[in-house]
Amino acid sequence: MAKEKKLVEAITSMEEDFAQWYTDVVKKAELVDYTSVKGCMVIKPAGYAIWENIQRELDRRFKETGVENVYMPLFIPESLLQKEKDHVEGFAPEVAWVTHGGLEELQERLCVRPTSETLFCDFYARDIHSHRDLPKVYNQWCSVVRWEKTTRPFLRSREFLWQEGHTAHATAEEAEERTIQMLNVYADFCEEELAIPVIKGRKTDKEKFAGAEATYTIESLMHDGKALQSGTSHNFGDGFAKAFGIQYADRDNTLKYVHQTSWGMTTRMIGAIIMVHGDNSGLVLPPRIAPVQAMIIPIQQKKEGVLEKADEMMAAIKKAGIRVKVDDSDKSPGWKFSEQEMRGIPVRIECGPKDIENGQAVIVRRDTREKIVVSFEDLAQKVQETLDTMQREMLERARAHRDAHTYEARDYEEFRKTIEEKPGFVKAMWCGCQECEDKIKEDTQATSRCIPFEQEQISDKCVCCGKPAKKMVYWGKAY
Amino acid sequence: MAKEKKLVEAITSMEEDFAQWYTDVVKKAELVDYTSVKGCMVIKPAGYAIWENIQRELDRRFKETGVENVYMPLFIPESLLQKEKDHVEGFAPEVAWVTHGGLEELQERLCVRPTSETLFCDFYARDIHSHRDLPKVYNQWCSVVRWEKTTRPFLRSREFLWQEGHTAHATAEEAEERTIQMLNVYADFCEEELAIPVIKGRKTDKEKFAGAEATYTIESLMHDGKALQSGTSHNFGDGFAKAFGIQYADRDNTLKYVHQTSWGMTTRMIGAIIMVHGDNSGLVLPPRIAPVQAMIIPIQQKKEGVLEKADEMMAAIKKAGIRVKVDDSDKSPGWKFSEQEMRGIPVRIECGPKDIENGQAVIVRRDTREKIVVSFEDLAQKVQETLDTMQREMLERARAHRDAHTYEARDYEEFRKTIEEKPGFVKAMWCGCQECEDKIKEDTQATSRCIPFEQEQISDKCVCCGKPAKKMVYWGKAY
Repeated sequence: MAKEKKLVEAITSMEEDFAQWYTDVVKKAELVDYTSVKGCMVIKPAGYAIWENIQRELDRRFKETGVENVYMPLFIPESLLQKEKDHVEGFAPEVAWVTHGGLEELQERLCVRPTSETLFCDFYARDIHSHRDLPKVYNQWCSVVRWEKTTRPFLRSREFLWQEGHTAHATAEEAEERTIQMLNVYADFCEEELAIPVIKGRKTDKEKFAGAEATYTIESLMHDGKALQSGTSHNFGDGFAKAFGIQYADRDNTLKYVHQTSWGMTTRMIGAIIMVHGDNSGLVLPPRIAPVQAMIIPIQQKKEGVLEKADEMMAAIKKAGIRVKVDDSDKSPGWKFSEQEMRGIPVRIECGPKDIENGQAVIVRRDTREKIVVSFEDLAQKVQETLDTMQREMLERARAHRDAHTYEARDYEEFRKTIEEKPGFVKAMWCGCQECEDKIKEDTQATSRCIPFEQEQISDKCVCCGKPAKKMVYWGKAY
Repeated sequence: MAKEKKLVEAITSMEEDFAQWYTDVVKKAELVDYTSVKGCMVIKPAGYAIWENIQRELDRRFKETGVENVYMPLFIPESLLQKEKDHVEGFAPEVAWVTHGGLEELQERLCVRPTSETLFCDFYARDIHSHRDLPKVYNQWCSVVRWEKTTRPFLRSREFLWQEGHTAHATAEEAEERTIQMLNVYADFCEEELAIPVIKGRKTDKEKFAGAEATYTIESLMHDGKALQSGTSHNFGDGFAKAFGIQYADRDNTLKYVHQTSWGMTTRMIGAIIMVHGDNSGLVLPPRIAPVQAMIIPIQQKKEGVLEKADEMMAAIKKAGIRVKVDDSDKSPGWKFSEQEMRGIPVRIECGPKDIENGQAVIVRRDTREKIVVSFEDLAQKVQETLDTMQREMLERARAHRDAHTYEARDYEEFRKTIEEKPGFVKAMWCGCQECEDKIKEDTQATSRCIPFEQEQISDKCVCCGKPAKKMVYWGKAY
């Protein structure tokens, strides 16, 4: 029992200190570890396997919409980064610079890509000639580097993994359509796979991507009431095309500029999974994204027939297409339970000599701890049903939590009080001026998360300055 | 017709200039393109899709042997790179150095990883404590950077994609076993998926990896008779473990050093596919690795029913699990044929109004140009058979080509003459001294490719110095 206690005691409770709870979970669930490289992390097998599942599922959804994968260089020459004015202003202060190759100093510095708009534009300028070359709907899976001062595993690190899609279109309409299409892919992915409900909307000009005409975002709410920007999709209009000279000969033989988009999702989604679904026993993984969906833990495994039965169950469950393992290590069952819970494996299957005698096993759900006694014949089917139910209920629970922590504010006093006292989203009207955004941030640390597509008329005045309101905005403190 | 001619004329024949033929094929088959970043390439959709298939198949084989994927940082602090003496000597002259992060100069330079032994060792030193933590069998998929002076697409570029496996074991025997196991995975993968026959063997001390105790290699022979090192697997013994202090408490409670291995395969295998299988019409892809395995090209597609039939055929073929597309663009059939050939799509299916009348289509093999008339009912099955036959015969042809270009030499005169006049492998005996390797390289530009596992006793004297021979070696000029 001493050992079991140790594993659970090793994590701070989330009510006591949410930030410490988060750090404890990423460490104890063996998702990441720190390295000798400041601000960079090792993603360990349990963490990387989640990312592989995210990749596989997102990539499948991308390809269904006609996306093709490519690979661009890691480095961007300084002169290339500088071609689009807003873009370089946004990124230059936070890039890493390569100044030497081998034993020689480079004639021109290269930055390690913080994002690859400039490389894709440089390529498109050479590769696109005619309307027949359009659209280009390219994506790459890679790592990017941003020289952050303070870092947290998955949420903010100097290097992180992501995908970045970059498209070029003949018309503004087509580019806008693709921008929204990819935002919808992200939203569906988050809700269906990660069981994380999202708010879809547009970023204010203050919060949009450096160089974009419009940035769309999906925003999710963590367990502590802080918001997390979970995926963004940008419409660049023809701004980059003009800076890089990306033109095509249209059907009427005139030269026109292309219209571009980009969109990305990152390993920070693993942080979102932890902070939306986790509890004081550790990680809770949505079944569809869990690398191991069911863990069979034999009880009194040294007794004759127990391990054989466990293997037999595993074979039957695997045959049903479920990712299942047996923990036959020489640890105690209690210790194994703690480990399975800490790692967030959705379903545990317990089976000992007595169960075998009765021809049954016990399924335990990770999220609710509900126990279901089930006969061997029904086991695989029941495990699948449990996984399906759990996936659905995790989304429902996260949605209920978000809704319960979404408030409205009609005047500035109410707004400040709500932000201060009630962690969550605050819906409030906005006049459209950056001055109000700046004031709100200074007074409350909250930022405009998005102008949601689903608008409501909460009042007709800006919650900050009282002037006529243009839009309803979701506000909140964010990671 | 003018257009069709243009596409084929666009590539140099391989007999005229093999290097130019190679460059033409990678460009015209749209595998890669050059960039504004010197020595780095864009991998375009047709090239990246091949890499995705290589990844998927290799990764599956890795995981069957218990490999787990992880992700390590992109950067290596200079002090970490310097911990193992031989290793830093081998790599320091060819790495890219990051000296500034954001607007500040770094206190310690970071190199962009040329390979990640040092990062894995640093991690293992912190993560491995007990024999229970062993073995660690980790792999990562990433890009690495080596500051090469002269570059060629896929074969040698400043950045390339690869996988690098890094393992730690309790005993020397287990490490050696894993080293050979992964070499065998590479060899089987090359032969079964890429239809490229390989020679398995050990590198001489001169040619081994910086820091390794033993390097094993698979060597393949390109169409022009030059060798290509196609995958390597290194046994480090406990050299790195001692440099980095990676120790574990064994069952007897004594501290012992781990034994390590590493092994890698890169995007250069796409270069190998081109140079082993390509011809003067372009690329020829082995069916199992081809992103598109069959291209349906409708004849007189504007006639009623032709495109409908093409789509119907596609559905039937897809249902059989074959990767198939219809080319319904507004180009001429002849132009489409050239494109399909240039891109190396293994099978073309032609179908026009007359074929439809006769209830048949024509299958054309990319490699032999053999035409097979087949009824609609048998189409999917016949396409699969054709793909299977083609895969098998491509390997047989490549093996026959290699065997026909593998020579033996008994004395130095014969050796020099063979190397000079007959591009290919030369099998010859070796005394084991580096002086002879150096002399051979200086005289002939040939290097020792490997000491093959399958030894033959060609003579009992070293082909170079005439002293008693220890081993038979494969020699050749290499990429």
